[in-house]
Parts: sequence; structure tokens; C-alpha cells
Amino acid sequence: MITAEKTIFEELESNVRGYCRAWPTVFTTAKGTWLRDEDGKDYLDFFAGAGALNYGHNHPVLKQPLLDYIASDGITHGLDMSTVAKRKLLETLRDTIFAPRGLDYKVQFPGPTGANAVEAALKLARKITGRKTILSFTNAFHGMTLGALSVTGNAAKRAGAGVPLVHATPMPYDGYFDGTTADFQWMERVLDDSSSGFDRPAAVIVETVQGEGGVNVARAEWLRHLAGLCAAREILLIVDDVQMGCGRTGPFFSFEVAGITPDIVTLSKSIGGYGLPMALVLFKPELDQWAPGEHNGTFRGNNPAFVTAQVALEHFWSDDALQTSTLAKGERIEQVLGRLAAEVPGVSLRGRGLVQGVVFDDPSQASKVCQVAFERGLLVETSGSMDEVVKLLPPLTVSDEELDLGLDLLSTAIDTVGGH
Amino acid sequence: MITAEKTIFEELESNVRGYCRAWPTVFTTAKGTWLRDEDGKDYLDFFAGAGALNYGHNHPVLKQPLLDYIASDGITHGLDMSTVAKRKLLETLRDTIFAPRGLDYKVQFPGPTGANAVEAALKLARKITGRKTILSFTNAFHGMTLGALSVTGNAAKRAGAGVPLVHATPMPYDGYFDGTTADFQWMERVLDDSSSGFDRPAAVIVETVQGEGGVNVARAEWLRHLAGLCAAREILLIVDDVQMGCGRTGPFFSFEVAGITPDIVTLSKSIGGYGLPMALVLFKPELDQWAPGEHNGTFRGNNPAFVTAQVALEHFWSDDALQTSTLAKGERIEQVLGRLAAEVPGVSLRGRGLVQGVVFDDPSQASKVCQVAFERGLLVETSGSMDEVVKLLPPLTVSDEELDLGLDLLSTAIDTVGGH
Amino acid sequence: MITAEKTIFEELESNVRGYCRAWPTVFTTAKGTWLRDEDGKDYLDFFAGAGALNYGHNHPVLKQPLLDYIASDGITHGLDMSTVAKRKLLETLRDTIFAPRGLDYKVQFPGPTGANAVEAALKLARKITGRKTILSFTNAFHGMTLGALSVTGNAAKRAGAGVPLVHATPMPYDGYFDGTTADFQWMERVLDDSSSGFDRPAAVIVETVQGEGGVNVARAEWLRHLAGLCAAREILLIVDDVQMGCGRTGPFFSFEVAGITPDIVTLSKSIGGYGLPMALVLFKPELDQWAPGEHNGTFRGNNPAFVTAQVALEHFWSDDALQTSTLAKGERIEQVLGRLAAEVPGVSLRGRGLVQGVVFDDPSQASKVCQVAFERGLLVETSGSMDEVVKLLPPLTVSDEELDLGLDLLSTAIDTVGGH
Amino acid sequence: MITAEKTIFEELESNVRGYCRAWPTVFTTAKGTWLRDEDGKDYLDFFAGAGALNYGHNHPVLKQPLLDYIASDGITHGLDMSTVAKRKLLETLRDTIFAPRGLDYKVQFPGPTGANAVEAALKLARKITGRKTILSFTNAFHGMTLGALSVTGNAAKRAGAGVPLVHATPMPYDGYFDGTTADFQWMERVLDDSSSGFDRPAAVIVETVQGEGGVNVARAEWLRHLAGLCAAREILLIVDDVQMGCGRTGPFFSFEVAGITPDIVTLSKSIGGYGLPMALVLFKPELDQWAPGEHNGTFRGNNPAFVTAQVALEHFWSDDALQTSTLAKGERIEQVLGRLAAEVPGVSLRGRGLVQGVVFDDPSQASKVCQVAFERGLLVETSGSMDEVVKLLPPLTVSDEELDLGLDLLSTAIDTVGGH
Repeated sequence: MITAEKTIFEELESNVRGYCRAWPTVFTTAKGTWLRDEDGKDYLDFFAGAGALNYGHNHPVLKQPLLDYIASDGITHGLDMSTVAKRKLLETLRDTIFAPRGLDYKVQFPGPTGANAVEAALKLARKITGRKTILSFTNAFHGMTLGALSVTGNAAKRAGAGVPLVHATPMPYDGYFDGTTADFQWMERVLDDSSSGFDRPAAVIVETVQGEGGVNVARAEWLRHLAGLCAAREILLIVDDVQMGCGRTGPFFSFEVAGITPDIVTLSKSIGGYGLPMALVLFKPELDQWAPGEHNGTFRGNNPAFVTAQVALEHFWSDDALQTSTLAKGERIEQVLGRLAAEVPGVSLRGRGLVQGVVFDDPSQASKVCQVAFERGLLVETSGSMDEVVKLLPPLTVSDEELDLGLDLLSTAIDTVGGH
Repeated sequence: MITAEKTIFEELESNVRGYCRAWPTVFTTAKGTWLRDEDGKDYLDFFAGAGALNYGHNHPVLKQPLLDYIASDGITHGLDMSTVAKRKLLETLRDTIFAPRGLDYKVQFPGPTGANAVEAALKLARKITGRKTILSFTNAFHGMTLGALSVTGNAAKRAGAGVPLVHATPMPYDGYFDGTTADFQWMERVLDDSSSGFDRPAAVIVETVQGEGGVNVARAEWLRHLAGLCAAREILLIVDDVQMGCGRTGPFFSFEVAGITPDIVTLSKSIGGYGLPMALVLFKPELDQWAPGEHNGTFRGNNPAFVTAQVALEHFWSDDALQTSTLAKGERIEQVLGRLAAEVPGVSLRGRGLVQGVVFDDPSQASKVCQVAFERGLLVETSGSMDEVVKLLPPLTVSDEELDLGLDLLSTAIDTVGGH
Repeated sequence: MITAEKTIFEELESNVRGYCRAWPTVFTTAKGTWLRDEDGKDYLDFFAGAGALNYGHNHPVLKQPLLDYIASDGITHGLDMSTVAKRKLLETLRDTIFAPRGLDYKVQFPGPTGANAVEAALKLARKITGRKTILSFTNAFHGMTLGALSVTGNAAKRAGAGVPLVHATPMPYDGYFDGTTADFQWMERVLDDSSSGFDRPAAVIVETVQGEGGVNVARAEWLRHLAGLCAAREILLIVDDVQMGCGRTGPFFSFEVAGITPDIVTLSKSIGGYGLPMALVLFKPELDQWAPGEHNGTFRGNNPAFVTAQVALEHFWSDDALQTSTLAKGERIEQVLGRLAAEVPGVSLRGRGLVQGVVFDDPSQASKVCQVAFERGLLVETSGSMDEVVKLLPPLTVSDEELDLGLDLLSTAIDTVGGH
Repeated sequence: MITAEKTIFEELESNVRGYCRAWPTVFTTAKGTWLRDEDGKDYLDFFAGAGALNYGHNHPVLKQPLLDYIASDGITHGLDMSTVAKRKLLETLRDTIFAPRGLDYKVQFPGPTGANAVEAALKLARKITGRKTILSFTNAFHGMTLGALSVTGNAAKRAGAGVPLVHATPMPYDGYFDGTTADFQWMERVLDDSSSGFDRPAAVIVETVQGEGGVNVARAEWLRHLAGLCAAREILLIVDDVQMGCGRTGPFFSFEVAGITPDIVTLSKSIGGYGLPMALVLFKPELDQWAPGEHNGTFRGNNPAFVTAQVALEHFWSDDALQTSTLAKGERIEQVLGRLAAEVPGVSLRGRGLVQGVVFDDPSQASKVCQVAFERGLLVETSGSMDEVVKLLPPLTVSDEELDLGLDLLSTAIDTVGGH
């Protein structure tokens, strides 16, 4: 029956489609931590739109203002015209996010995708410094457009560019050598050696936790060292917080744990609150050297997303309740799965807050676990260079019961696969 | 008063903001061809979200299904999971758009912006052919990410890249030499001369009418010649229909006038119907050589846009009424402004369907006309390499009265500026 | 016997070897216009070391000073140390070449090859202007290193790079459209159109006659137009005189015919006089912005070549006798072969001074003619994008009798091939 | 007086000139290890034409055959025509160099410079593998043309390119971390991590001792590890033996010490024997995938250099006397200067065979030492990223007395400078 129903996807949709292969059903509605398919089956969502649904699906606190806005014929598509919705969003950003953290960032609205925010950040860094090279990190993921792809690690994705990806060089991420080598030994050396063959970079772009790269977690001291290293050499530090921002790791910005202030920050995914396309680039005021219209994009004024973004900031970030609960839930996962990892050979756990990865020594097991989980009603996906990690990204609004249910389903799936 | 209200934009928003400078007010609601600012002033919109609002603002036929979908907790954010909303959209695309035109395109959902669709198209063309160079055209505009920018003409926008833009070469667009030179003399010659210094290209990317480039219109026979030239040399033909598709020039696809079938087509802007971010890449089935996930993007499953896109296709494209009225309205503009152009020295007109450009020999006049028009309640913007063209992009749903009112406001603005 | 003798070449020498295939014999000595192989057979040389032997083989006026210099233990290898031999060369350059022509060029000694001179010229132009793009011309040839190759037209040679050749764009050379299109229509237009998609170039590099490209001759007025066009836009003009300089077209510099003064000039091939490796880059004094050692090369001080270069300049260029005789001999060729071209269908002639090309409508005939000529004792080679041109490059010192003999041998070969 | 004499150099020669600034005199003749200036002053040469004069200046065993060849009108300039001189050279290469070492290399004659040999090697590696990236090493030097520069470390030289240098990435050379990190930890890891962001390279290019980079010596086991690492991953290994080949470190090829057989070897500098421009590329027969003429160069047939090259191979390499004496002299240097280094704080020594570097903790001292040495009649130059190394490159034919004299002069210079 499902086969017949899906004909049109197979018939018309490009081979490039992916998730519909791993999860072969047709979804229809969603609420909170749950998705429902057209056969009425419910799925617990520990995937959260690849991190774009930190507040869950169709959260009622966001939904009603969105409905009201649309019903009242609020501006839908506004490019960068000034609108009431944008004003309210900017005010809330300033008062709820920037002011309490002592930040005075300028806000750019690029096209509404993380890749576009990254492209804008790289362009700005190059413009300001007059340099071309960007330092990225092993196993990084920053997007699929040509500029973003050049700082992305995955070989298969890179090959898709069809042209050589240049002006970017990877450096070892935290833990790349399992602690056997001093942090930044290579990076500092080549930056300070005028015959190293490395051109002086415009910027470093980093994720504080590499989600697509396999839930690799940079330590706070490593991030601080990186920030200091950049500052001392007048290299701009870009934190790509597209997946780890908006509270995924606990605090609103993932870099808060390290006490650093990046020069440039990219946000997307959960910033819109409701899963609507939106992205931001934040940067220190002295870096705001854009000419008007120098970077633009038709959908940079997706006002319905501004509405839900504003309500989300106000509702979830006026106090530290969400941060506290995220950290508590992260600890709950670490407790349950940590115990499991200790018991099952070839399995380990890593993560921060509500991004957690179950790492399998035998990479083939991770995909099997995800498949079994799906069959039992849990959505989780793999990440890592060999798809060896089962990545947990539940909504931050997941209830304790849902969290336990999900961990239970996952544990069973691991048992099942391990039992093969 | 406005100054005080706008403080937050000046305070927080990056210098890169543009339209809010030309139109210094704060918009709040919109309906059909009209925008309203917070002072209650109404503006007639001959700009249509830079071509993203072919069906006007918040069209009631689209609005109600959108509200219903959100209210019923339909999937909002779906990546490329199969959903009921996507199925319905694919079916409508097939039955309403492809089948009547004898097209068997495959459909890719890239990130929800035109630039992303262009990036995907270029990647696919390079992958299929194994070649790197793309031929673009003088005065082309295809987007602001690194790949899209490399095929864009504007020097200031190109400079923003901060790195050399390579693997693309411009060719003369139709009319570049005012007919003094045989069409494709240069392009055909260098393609067929193995010592020309040109590497064999993967693809040609073309707009049938260059909107940003100054409303430059390619003749049907020129497009046919181009298509033939590409076919004979196994070079892929990409029509970027992001701005000119969805009926802007009359037919759904702007290339229908030439009777050609491009290998790859990009759509965005008005495809979502309601101004919501969405984009498509269409290509011949034999070109569907993507590996699963080889190009992706978090917001490629913006299901609310799928809902409005589907309703828009069904409502506006089940018969040829819209096409007929678009052409009639285009003729109305040509009549009125053609007369004006004949009378006012230094002014001429060009366009197709509902994209029309009033060209000023003295480029400075175009901006002045737009400014005066704004003061009188009409939104129009300039385009062209010297901003010498006032570009008219009214919604296709503009009424005859609105059209006449807008042309009247514009004519008066031209008189006013000319009277200086 | 030859087969047996040649074993070592076939056994050890790379497939990349070329001339030894067209001329399958082993040469041993040479004098003036003649080469001798080890079987004692003499060959009349209308090839002159691809233009490196304008004064013939082993000219006695150069040979004796060379022998004396070596015998007296003059410095052989001097990098850019000051030497007596270099001083004498510089003085002669100044007094014999620069002063009479009103030139105040600075002299750079790059590595001793034309490609290296071109690489240095491109680097200098980019350094001075801060721009990256170089405009080259269809059918250009400038060398085989990565920078020189990027401004070279031949597709097979370009493919050898193994990486995309970027930062260079070809423009139509004089006569590319057989006069149907105004000179520089395309080039001027794109340079002056800020939305053409062309980045402002650092320099234009041009050969006044394209030797490898098929003996394409730029008219004096075209060169003047080019020079004016560059000057008006602050684009540097580089004349690559590696093959056409040192009197090949009559005057010492091939651009003298146009009355222009290029910003940068490259010389190599015949500048050493005796066929010894040497190259020069000349540029206006205000362009001498090199830092010490910023471009270098181990063999930039090939002092034996300085000795023969100096004697050659003094002996051949103290008066205008050589220029006069070169032009006269060129006319002699035009007379004889012009008559032949008028008689034989599908054959035409073009050239300037002592570089002349016999063009065959049927490209396959040109190679056959060269082969027959070799068998009869005349060395000539093909050029052009389809090897459709038999290129005549006799030493400028060829005697009238030798010239007539060569033309006779060539005419017979053309007859023979035409008779097939 | 010198000032007046030098006017023409200052007047005409480009600022790019270098050595003539460090050694402000005008040289006239040279013999063996000695140069003489026009004032009759003699200089002991521990520089040897930057490594191009391994057999000293104007060695009589080479000089006479060179004079005879020129006197007898042997072919001077032969491109890649077969000649008697080339045959003899190929036979000697095969019998004297290849056969005793069990090598079956093919021989390419590129343009007569090291940079050209490197450009050819990189092109070939890219052609064969279809990949683009080359791995180079920190502090490498391979030449000044665009391709060679891209694998060179020095920032100032790289900046001279004027365009971004791409398709190459540096890796840490042996000893870059003073042994604190496992060899190849970074390189092996990124090659084997499909998400490292490194594209699979075509080749690795390495110097066994980095001359320009500061006399950095790679250990034999490091070279073996590198060769194994490349072989296991089908990455071609190119040894650039331009400066270290022809016996500089003892054996003919510098890589013999490690017992490895590189896929591709570049030779230039001393290969011509007499300081005449010449270069070779050697590669395994299965890599000889060049098309005829795919890489060429006007001066690739510098036959006088073939003559001296052949005699040099025959005279110096028919037995192991030179290798033995080179190693002995190297030990003599290590003995004398090692003692000095042990006594003088801030001075150390490194090298292999007759390339030795005196390293100064205070970089400014190295230049001062060279200046004092020059004043006392010894030519030595600095190298290293901060010019902190005094590099000793005496001719291999230096006598024991000359060696002691030079070491004495150098020691005194070090004392003098240290005494400041």
C-alpha cells in the first residue's frame, strides 16, 4: 500500500532525495515531539528537523501568533524593507539575547538558510581583511553552496561541487589526535612560520560541537585557546552556530560555555522557532563594512518567521529555565546511555546538552540501529565520516517521559542490532 | 516621528540593508497590490517582492489553505521526508504544469532560495559533463552565493565575493551590440575553435529576460539559436526562471515563447505562491544523476510553501486565463508608456508581459523617478548596470484600475523629474 | 640503420618528444642555414630553432667571442651577480637598442626561457595593479608553465595543465571575424560595462604576429587601437616578443611598425644570438616595483649567452641593414609564394617580414607538405589550431640563393602533395 | 671606483636583482672554487651557483669538450630533435646512473630550468591521476613560476604571484615539531579520514634536504615512511632533486640514502655539469603518458649542456670516488663547525654531505656573518624562513686546503659577528 502511495515521489522527485529513503512513509501532521504518518502511526522525533525544531513541532505558543499574523494580512514577504514584525524581532534580540550577555552585535538578514549565512560571513571576513583563505576544521559541515562547501569536510559532498574547492584549509579539530598532541600545535606553528606555505587567513570558522561531523565536542578551553590565537593574529573568528545555537547545548549561544565572543556568528535552523526558513549573521559593530545591498537574497525578509522567532525568543529565553532543563535532560541521556555504553562493548557516548552521539566501533551498526528504531517508532539519524554515530537531537521541549521512552526505544534497538 | 520609530533598524541592522533606505517607512500589512505602512498610508506595489509575489500579497485563495494547514498541525519543516503536502504539490506540478506542456522533468527541492537552485543546477551540470566552465551572459544576475555570483555580471556584487570568481565566462546577451553583429558570432566561433583559449563548457545559464540586468529581453529566435547551439555541442542549457517564471512574461515558463525545452530549469520567487521561501530545480530525467543527499539544505522541505504553491498552480494555471490577462496587461503598459516614451526625449521602453522597463538615457533620472513615485505612493525600483531602468513588476493579479493608477503615478513622476 | 641508431631515444626518451618524430634522423652539426645529420645529409633550415636562430646556426661572428670567453674562464653561471659580460650587454642594449628608439626600459633577467619571462611579466602586472585577470587573445601561445599556459589558446596544451586555468580571458585577435565586426567591439564594450561580468584586468598580453597560432598578423592600426584602449583604462600592455622580436618581422621589436611603446615586453629565443638559453623582461621604469629577489631563477645569469647576445646586438643592430634585408626577403617570399597561392586553389599566404605562413584550406595538406619537404631536405613545420599552416621561419641571415632554393623545394612539395 | 663602474647595473637592471647587492663587486673570471672580480680580488666560493656548480667553475675536464663541440659546429640549439650529443648523454645516463642503481626511468627534457622541471612533474602527476591537489611541505622551495610557486613555502615569494596559489597544501616536514609528534600523524590521518576536508592528492613533492628552506634534513626513515605512505594510497611521490641531486649529499640521487625509488624525479642545476641551463624529469616507464609535444619549451635541447652533462656523468660518476670524498668533506665540516657550535652559544649545525647549515638563534647574525665573510673573500649565503642559516654549498671538487681555508674564514666571521 505504501508503495502505491509513494509512486509520485519515485516518479517525479530527484534521486537526490534522502530522508524519505531511510524513513519510508508519508508524514502528515506533527505536534511537539511527535510526527504522524498518513496511516496514523506516531513517531517520536529525536531528530528535530536536523536541529531546526528545538522547540518541537508546531508549538502552540508560536502557532497562534503565526496564525494571527497571517490572518491579519501581516507582511509576508518583505525583503529588507522595514516592517513591524522585524522591528519587534530586533528589539527582542537586543533586549532578551544581546543585552543580558553584554553583546553589541549588528544583525544581518541574509537569505533564509544556514548556507547563505555562512556565505555572507565568509564574504564579510574576506572583505574586511583583504585576505582570501579561511581555516576550517576536520569533519566540519557548513553547507552545500560553493563557498560553504569549501569549508566542509565530507569528501562525497565536496566532490559534488564539480570544481576544485579552494581558498580554505582544514585544521585539526579538538581531539583529532585523541589528546596525544598539544592543542593547536600545527595551527599555531604554520600561522607563525612565514615559510610554512600557508597564506595568512581571513578567518577561522568553527562549530563548537560538530553535529554532522559525528557529535565531536570542542572543550571550552580549546575554544578559548582558539579565540585567543585568532585575536592575537588579527584573524576573525566565525562561530557557525546554525545547528548548535538557540539552546541546543544549553545556553542560547553554544560558545557561551567558553566565555568567548566570536567576531561573527551564523544562526539559522531553530532561530525561526517554528521550522520556518530564516537565518541571521551577527557581527561586531566595527565589522559592519557592508555596502547597502552588497549581499542580498529574495527571501531575506520572511516575516512569518520573524514573528515566530520573536515569540520564541521571548517565551523561551526571558529566563534560564530552558537552559537549565536542557542541561538536565542532557545529563539524563548521559546517565542512561552512559550506562549502556559501559555495558555494551564497542559503544561509547559523547555530546553536550541535548546533542548526544552514540558511537559504534563497527560503523555498520549505527545505520542498523536507526532502521530498527524507525520500525519501532523512533526517528534518529546517523552522522560522522563513516556514519558511525547515532545522533540524538530531540526537541529541547521534550518531556521527561518522552525522553525516557526514546532512550528506551533506542536501547532496545541497540540491543537488537548487537544481538545479530 | 518616523526617525524615532526606526531607531532599532539603524541601531541593530547591518549597513547591508537596502530597500528600507529607498522606502523609508515601516510597513505593516499588505493585500493584493497594496502595502500599508504603520502610519496607515497605502502604497501601490509595482515591485511585487522583486518578482516573488506574482499573485499579489496574501491572496485569499492561498491564505485560507495556509491557515488551515497550520491550524491542523500539518508538517511544517520536513527536509526531504515524504509528506502529504509534497505529494499533492508533485501531482499538481505533473498534471497542471508538466503534462500539458509535454515535459517529463524530474523535480529537485534544493534549499528554498533562487541562489541555492542555481548552485544545485551548476553542480549537476558539472557533475554530468565532467567539465568546469559555465557560460553566462553580460548583465546576468543569478544570486549572491559563491557559485551563483560567479555567473553574475554586476561588478560591485562580484567584488563582494572577496575571492576571484572563476570557472565562468560571460558571452554577449541578445542585443548587446544593438544588432550590428550576427547573433552568437563570438560564442559559436570560440566554441568551435580548438585554439580559442576557451575550455569546453559544462553548461550555458541564461535568463530569457534579464530583470536585474535592466529588463533586457532575448528574442525567441535568439533563444532557439542558443538552444540549438548547445544541443549540437552537448552543452547543457540552464534557463534560470527564478524571476521570469511562474507567468511573469505570460506563459508559466518564460521559455515557452521560444518553443525550447531547457535541460535544467531553476524556479524560486513566485513558485511558493504566497511569498514563502521555496525553490525547485527541474531537469530532464536522464540528467538525474544525483546521489542521495549529494546536495541538500535544511529548509528544502518548507511544507507551508508547498501548500500555497500547490493551490497557486491549481488556481492560476489550470487554464490560460492568467497568461491571457498578463499579456493583455503587458500590452496596456506598452501602449501607455510607449506613448510617453515617444513623447519624452531620452526615454524608451522594453519588456515582455508584465516585466517592463522604462529606460532613461540619463541614468540619474531613473532613481529620481522611483523616489518621486514612492512619495506619491507607488513602489517601483531601478535595475540595469547604471540603475538606468525603472523596472515595472506589478503582481499579475493587478486589476486594470490599479494598473492604470500605477501608470498614471509613474507618468507623473517621470514628468516631475523631467521638469527639473 | 637509422632505426638501430635511434634505439636509445625510443628506449629512454619520454613520449613527449616531438620534432624527432617529424624529422626522423640524428643531427650532428649545423652552420648558417644548414643542418647536417650523421649520414652526412644536409637540410636547409626554414625553421630556425622555432625562431631562436634568427642569425642562423653557429654564426662565426658570435662563435669566436663565445669560444674566447669560455677559453678565458669567463664567468659561466652568475645568477644575478654583476659581471663584466652582463655590463657589456646592458651597455649595448642601452646604446644600440633603447637609445635610438627613445626607450627607457628597465631590464629584468628572469629564468632563461620565454615562459619564464611571461610568468615574470604577468606577476609584475598583477603586483602593480592589484588586479588578477589577464586578457589574452584567441590562438595565442605564451608557454607551458602554469601561468603562461593560462593565457595560451591551444586546447590540447591547456588540458595538460591538469588543473583549471583561471584568471585569464581570451579576446578576439585581429581578423578573427574576417573584418565583419568592428575591431575591439566586444573588448571595449565589456571593459566599459560594469555589469558585463568581466573583472577589470591587470594587463593585456599580445603577440603582434601569432606564430604558433597560425601566422596571424595584427595590423598596425589594430595594435595602436589596442594600446590606446589599454592606456585609457590603466590596463598594462604586454607585448610578448619572444618569437617575433629580434628582427623576425623586420625591426628589432615587432611592435615598432605600430609606433607603440608597450608597458612590458618579453624577449627570449633569438635574444641570446647563438641559440643559447636567455630571456629578458623589459618594462617602463615606473613599473619596476619588484622587491629584490621577488622573482628569481637559477639560470638567470647564463653569461655565455650574454656574450653572444651582446655581439649579436652590436653586429646586427648598429645599423638598419638587417631590417632592410629582412623586409626585402619577406617581399621575395610574398612574391614567389603569392604567385603560387594565386595559382593553386585552396592555398593562401600571410605573414610579415621573415615569418610567413602558407595556409591550406585542407589542413591535412600542410603536414604532408612538411613531410615531403623534409624528404627533399627542407625543414619547415606547421602551425595553427588545425595545423593548417606551413610556417616559414628562415634565419634572417639566409642568403638569396638559399631563400630561392628553399622556396623552390617548398613549391615542389606543395605541387607533389596537391598532385595526390 | 666600484660605484662608477656599476652605474649601468643600477641604471638599467631591475630592482629585482639580488646577489649583486650582497656581493657588491663585478666578477670577471672563475676557476674551480674561485671567483675573481675585475679588481683582481679572489673569492672562495662556498655557494657554487646556488648548487648549480657541484663540479666547480669551468672544470677543465668539461671545458675542453665544450670548446671542441662549439668549435666543430656541433648542434647548439636542437629542441627535441635527435642529436648525437643527446644520444651520448642518454647512453651515459643509462649506463652510468640508471643501470648501476637498478632504475628504469624514462627521461624528459623540459625547458632548461628547475622550475620548468617541477611544472612538468606536477602536470604529469595530475594527468596520470586525474586529481588536482599536490601535497608539499613546510619551508619547501620549488621555483617561481605559477605551478612551482604553489608548492613553495616562502610567504614573500608566494605573494609575488599576484593570484591565489591553489591546489596545493603543505604538510609538516621532518622535524617540524622537534620530534614531539609522531611522524606523519597529521598527514596520514587526513588522507585516511574521508571527512577531513582534504581532497585526495595527485602527488607529494619533497626535497630530501631543504636548501632554501634552511638546510632542513629529512631522515632516511622519514623518507621511507613517506614513500610507503604514498605507495599504499596510490599517490605519486616526486622528489625534487634540483639542488640536492648530482651528488650534493653524497650519492648521485639524494634519495639513495633512504633506499627509495620515487615515481618522478626532477633534476636541474648541476646536471649540466658546467653551469649551463639544463633540466631533466625522470619517471617510471608506466607514467610516461605524455602525448607528443604536450609539454615543451624552446630551450629543451641545449646541446652544449648535453655535452658537458655527459662528460660530467662519465668523469665523476663512473666510480664512487666523488661520493666518498663528498661524505668525507661533509664530515670534515661537521667536525670543525660542530666544535665551533658546541663552543658558541646560540649556534648549531645541520646538514648532510656537502650541504651544511650554521643556524643562529639570533637570525640577524647570519646575514652579518655572510657580509663579513664576503669582505674577507668567502662567498656564502643565508637561507631559512628568517634568513637565520648560513648555508655552505662548496663545490664537491673543493680541495681539502680550500675547505679548511673556507671554514677558517667562516669561523673568524662568526667570531667577529659574535664579538659585536
